[in-house]
Amino acid sequence: MMSQTSRHFFEDFPPPNNFEHTTSKVESFVKQHQTGCKNVVLITSGGTAVPMESRTVRFIDNFSTGTRGAASTEYFLAAGYAVIFLHRAKSAKPFVRHFPEEKLLDLFVMPDETKSSSSAITVKPNESTRLARVLRAYHSASSSNSLLSIPFFSLQDYLYFLKSISDVLGQLEQKSMFLLAAAVSDFYIPRAEMPEHKMQSSEGPPEVKLSSVPKMLPVLIHQWAPEAFIVSFKLETDPKLLLLKSRKALDTYQHQVVVANILEERRRKVTVITSDSETELELSGEQMKDGKELEEVLVQDLVAKHGAFIQSAQGR
Amino acid sequence: MMSQTSRHFFEDFPPPNNFEHTTSKVESFVKQHQTGCKNVVLITSGGTAVPMESRTVRFIDNFSTGTRGAASTEYFLAAGYAVIFLHRAKSAKPFVRHFPEEKLLDLFVMPDETKSSSSAITVKPNESTRLARVLRAYHSASSSNSLLSIPFFSLQDYLYFLKSISDVLGQLEQKSMFLLAAAVSDFYIPRAEMPEHKMQSSEGPPEVKLSSVPKMLPVLIHQWAPEAFIVSFKLETDPKLLLLKSRKALDTYQHQVVVANILEERRRKVTVITSDSETELELSGEQMKDGKELEEVLVQDLVAKHGAFIQSAQGR
Repeated sequence: MMSQTSRHFFEDFPPPNNFEHTTSKVESFVKQHQTGCKNVVLITSGGTAVPMESRTVRFIDNFSTGTRGAASTEYFLAAGYAVIFLHRAKSAKPFVRHFPEEKLLDLFVMPDETKSSSSAITVKPNESTRLARVLRAYHSASSSNSLLSIPFFSLQDYLYFLKSISDVLGQLEQKSMFLLAAAVSDFYIPRAEMPEHKMQSSEGPPEVKLSSVPKMLPVLIHQWAPEAFIVSFKLETDPKLLLLKSRKALDTYQHQVVVANILEERRRKVTVITSDSETELELSGEQMKDGKELEEVLVQDLVAKHGAFIQSAQGR
Repeated sequence: MMSQTSRHFFEDFPPPNNFEHTTSKVESFVKQHQTGCKNVVLITSGGTAVPMESRTVRFIDNFSTGTRGAASTEYFLAAGYAVIFLHRAKSAKPFVRHFPEEKLLDLFVMPDETKSSSSAITVKPNESTRLARVLRAYHSASSSNSLLSIPFFSLQDYLYFLKSISDVLGQLEQKSMFLLAAAVSDFYIPRAEMPEHKMQSSEGPPEVKLSSVPKMLPVLIHQWAPEAFIVSFKLETDPKLLLLKSRKALDTYQHQVVVANILEERRRKVTVITSDSETELELSGEQMKDGKELEEVLVQDLVAKHGAFIQSAQGR
């Protein structure tokens, strides 16, 4: 049921090591929330690595912090969704992102050793209120088993997981959502072009021949999860091109939503585009200063649109 | 005073944004510890990114966790050294590495809200002893200003910082040490071969022409810091090649130490090689289980060798 080129891509690479184990975790996660009548969203996040050797030392990467995906995960959980968070290992993570490495060590207060009663390390009082809120949301997600985190490293692993999760999640039909926020590489190095071991510097600089990654979005939309609510992202630097290209993607692939971003203002403003609407979401300067996040507004809008989508399907 | 090729490399790329500011921080750091009669070690750590575009979205990377450099930093601080930690942003960091992301959120205990007296988040009691030790070492390094952390992203930034730090640190002559543990790329993409903007997928897959990075180790040893104590690393997968290649590096560059590692056993065993000695350092299974780190033993050995090096220079 896949296109020739996408099938060929999968045949060229073995699945990730933990593939079957992960797939069965996805199956029981989806089953649990299907029984519990929750909507389930797959959020993809971060960049994909393109290996240059079979036993990878070198790889091609693309810059992506993963903030959009990690923040959206928190707001979908708050909205009552179960979330599968498919993310590049080392990119931003929900809840953990509120404890940034640069400030982590200064968060702690050492126990006062002159008082025998207080022997525990504590978190600075002025940070405690904010972080208690984060920890409560984390504990709530953990205890209800509403968050399944799946890390990936390479483009190949990402696509294998995307396919297997889509196959399972697609069974929820309209109650499933896909938020495809990962920055996926357009290029890869076919196995035949890859040396097995680390390239030796003594052999001189290699020439690297890249190939185009087959487009998986149409396969996902039309074959893996044809009844789901699918949200893709478009990021451009040229505002004039942005709406044109977003509208074109929607026309070509016939899915539900394109979220359009301009690189420079993506933390402050996005446009949510559907076949018959265009919604600009923007934070004010004041809201930005107060630490409000655009993802809160974006998720609210997507949840509303998903609700309408489910209702209209039930009415058919 | 540089070789033709290394000068050409620097001329091809602009210095990092914060270059002058960072260099002046290095100058006052080294001056402080020169006055305080401390030895100062530069530790380089993590992999270097090779940009594929001038305004970098895509880059070539090489896998390196940075554990060796981050752990060594802690042990050098404990041995009374001042440390300049030149590291890839996002690789392992001293002290912070004891709070790994995967376990971070489960480290905290929420305040018991039924008791008004305890309103602070605390760290789990069974983790507190270990982490208090880490935090004490961190506070001691902070209050004595003994650790200067400089993050880098690209190969180019790394080499600019390496040169400017070497120029300053070299003035300490024998009292300076260089621990060159970073995994530096052998290849780069010359500016002339780089598009300015993100490559467009519609233009088809690009062909990437790499060039060899000029060897900076001989320039560092003979020109930037000719009196310093210099430690380089050699990592191989073939044990037979390892000692041969390490000995050859020492003969060619005429520096003080090569630390030889086999990839698979690098956490458990290294060989410290000088012109007239070969010291195998190895942890027992029991020591590994107790959480002892090879870097503790390695730093101890290097500190002793550095001490002898300083004494013999004074005796000349």
